[in-house]
Amino acid sequence: MSVLVVGSMAIDTVEFAGTGERREVVGGSATFASMAAGLYTDVRMVGVVGKDFPTATLDALKQRRVDTTGVQVAEGETFRWHGRYSPDLSSRESLATHLNVFEHFRPTLPESYRDSRVVLLGNIHPTLQAEVLDQAKSPQLVAADTMNFWIHGTPKELHALLPRVGLLIINEEEARDLSGQRSVVRVGRALQALGPRRIVVKQGEYGAWLFDGDEVFHAPAYPVEQVVDPTGAGDTFAGAMLGYLDAYGDFSPSAFRRAVVHGSALASLCVEHYGTDGVHGATRDRVGARVRAFARLVHAEHDE
Amino acid sequence: MSVLVVGSMAIDTVEFAGTGERREVVGGSATFASMAAGLYTDVRMVGVVGKDFPTATLDALKQRRVDTTGVQVAEGETFRWHGRYSPDLSSRESLATHLNVFEHFRPTLPESYRDSRVVLLGNIHPTLQAEVLDQAKSPQLVAADTMNFWIHGTPKELHALLPRVGLLIINEEEARDLSGQRSVVRVGRALQALGPRRIVVKQGEYGAWLFDGDEVFHAPAYPVEQVVDPTGAGDTFAGAMLGYLDAYGDFSPSAFRRAVVHGSALASLCVEHYGTDGVHGATRDRVGARVRAFARLVHAEHDE
Repeated sequence: MSVLVVGSMAIDTVEFAGTGERREVVGGSATFASMAAGLYTDVRMVGVVGKDFPTATLDALKQRRVDTTGVQVAEGETFRWHGRYSPDLSSRESLATHLNVFEHFRPTLPESYRDSRVVLLGNIHPTLQAEVLDQAKSPQLVAADTMNFWIHGTPKELHALLPRVGLLIINEEEARDLSGQRSVVRVGRALQALGPRRIVVKQGEYGAWLFDGDEVFHAPAYPVEQVVDPTGAGDTFAGAMLGYLDAYGDFSPSAFRRAVVHGSALASLCVEHYGTDGVHGATRDRVGARVRAFARLVHAEHDE
Repeated sequence: MSVLVVGSMAIDTVEFAGTGERREVVGGSATFASMAAGLYTDVRMVGVVGKDFPTATLDALKQRRVDTTGVQVAEGETFRWHGRYSPDLSSRESLATHLNVFEHFRPTLPESYRDSRVVLLGNIHPTLQAEVLDQAKSPQLVAADTMNFWIHGTPKELHALLPRVGLLIINEEEARDLSGQRSVVRVGRALQALGPRRIVVKQGEYGAWLFDGDEVFHAPAYPVEQVVDPTGAGDTFAGAMLGYLDAYGDFSPSAFRRAVVHGSALASLCVEHYGTDGVHGATRDRVGARVRAFARLVHAEHDE
């Protein structure tokens, strides 16, 4: 079984107030998500890089069960993002975005990818997300992420995509924006009405909510001592969640709950290090230890 | 058994962007906390009001197992607070504060209060909180709340009080302020180092963390459809938590976890209505239903 991941592959420069900056480090939604999913299952990656993208990263991905046949290497430079975090890392601003080879990216699925059971549509133009789905044969689970840029820039295309999506994984701010609602219950229900049966609302350090049909589930963020770099945590969450589901081979409500916890656990390992270092260094054992800790973290025996 | 509650009793005017304002409604930390604790156990209330405080509220408190012998009725007007919430209710500003009879408040415990098993020191001057403790015989559990005003205005008095406190219940922002830490784990540990074995960090709509010795517990906020008025939710949380503990008669780690869930449940009923209406209208059955819903909300069976 396998997870198809499409999204951005980037070279980031990230400024941190107080602790300096990291220049030209590997990033991108597909990179984090594939590395995360590859901890659980076979991954088929779709993206585009320039000739300047480090081969060491592609090698590291291959070593982690990630098939990079679908990663196009184009003439020109890799997509570059330059951002700056607020001192407490709770928000960030984009200082520069250079699409470069990403500008004319058209995802093409190698023949060997078309039977993927699970598809993760990373945060790219909803029309490109739809084109990926058009090329997939009959995935059993389609997950998607999106952002304000598409919510406001291409609402028609996004709304056309959502009925084809089974699981929408989205930040709280963007979820409120897309739904027009404030309370997480109403946000979840309004987003379900747009198509997806399952909605995950990510609240960063405050955890995540899963709406699955009529059921609601909450998992806190694993309480890490110190967040070093939140970049890629959401993509890591999504990659781990879908990797777990594919590996477990079960799309029942309880499997989705456990998948959210795995997503939170791996995301917590991500934010403890800069860039992809945390996900790259993660092992199933370390994720497993945090997953077990979650159970204790929320456990209260009730007598009424 | 019984819970002693000391704190403010107020008449509030609260402005809500969009939904108008509520003028001259009953509020105050002791009012919310006593009404909440009274749902579980006998409460002994200490505070001061002016002759303008509605007797209907005092009657309602008495009907809910709240002994108001310790409520002084002074010449002059009741403490008044005038505040305005942001449109999304996530923050508020104080427009006016008139201490009135509260300015010269010195809490005096009636003889019948001195054997209280549990003491809740609401958010008042730490020297007054200490004076209440001086008058109590040998409480088995002392809980306290505080705020930025005391953290910065009377740090010495506050730090002298904390070693006498077994449970500090505090907002996240104030917890960060008092501890000088950011991540909730470090906040919890730093606050424990100031004295209290148990710390509850309240995160409003994002739930609450309990640090109990080496143990950590998290409960989400119960996901309500719509928050109407957050006023008093924190005091309601504290009152329900201590009322539950006293009624349950057990101060074990698992009792504290369940108490946090009861606090969250009753606080969720509080914010669904204006002022004290939600707490006043709450029943043990309605709280119990939410407590049971919490168990399902966080449940994930783990296979590893």
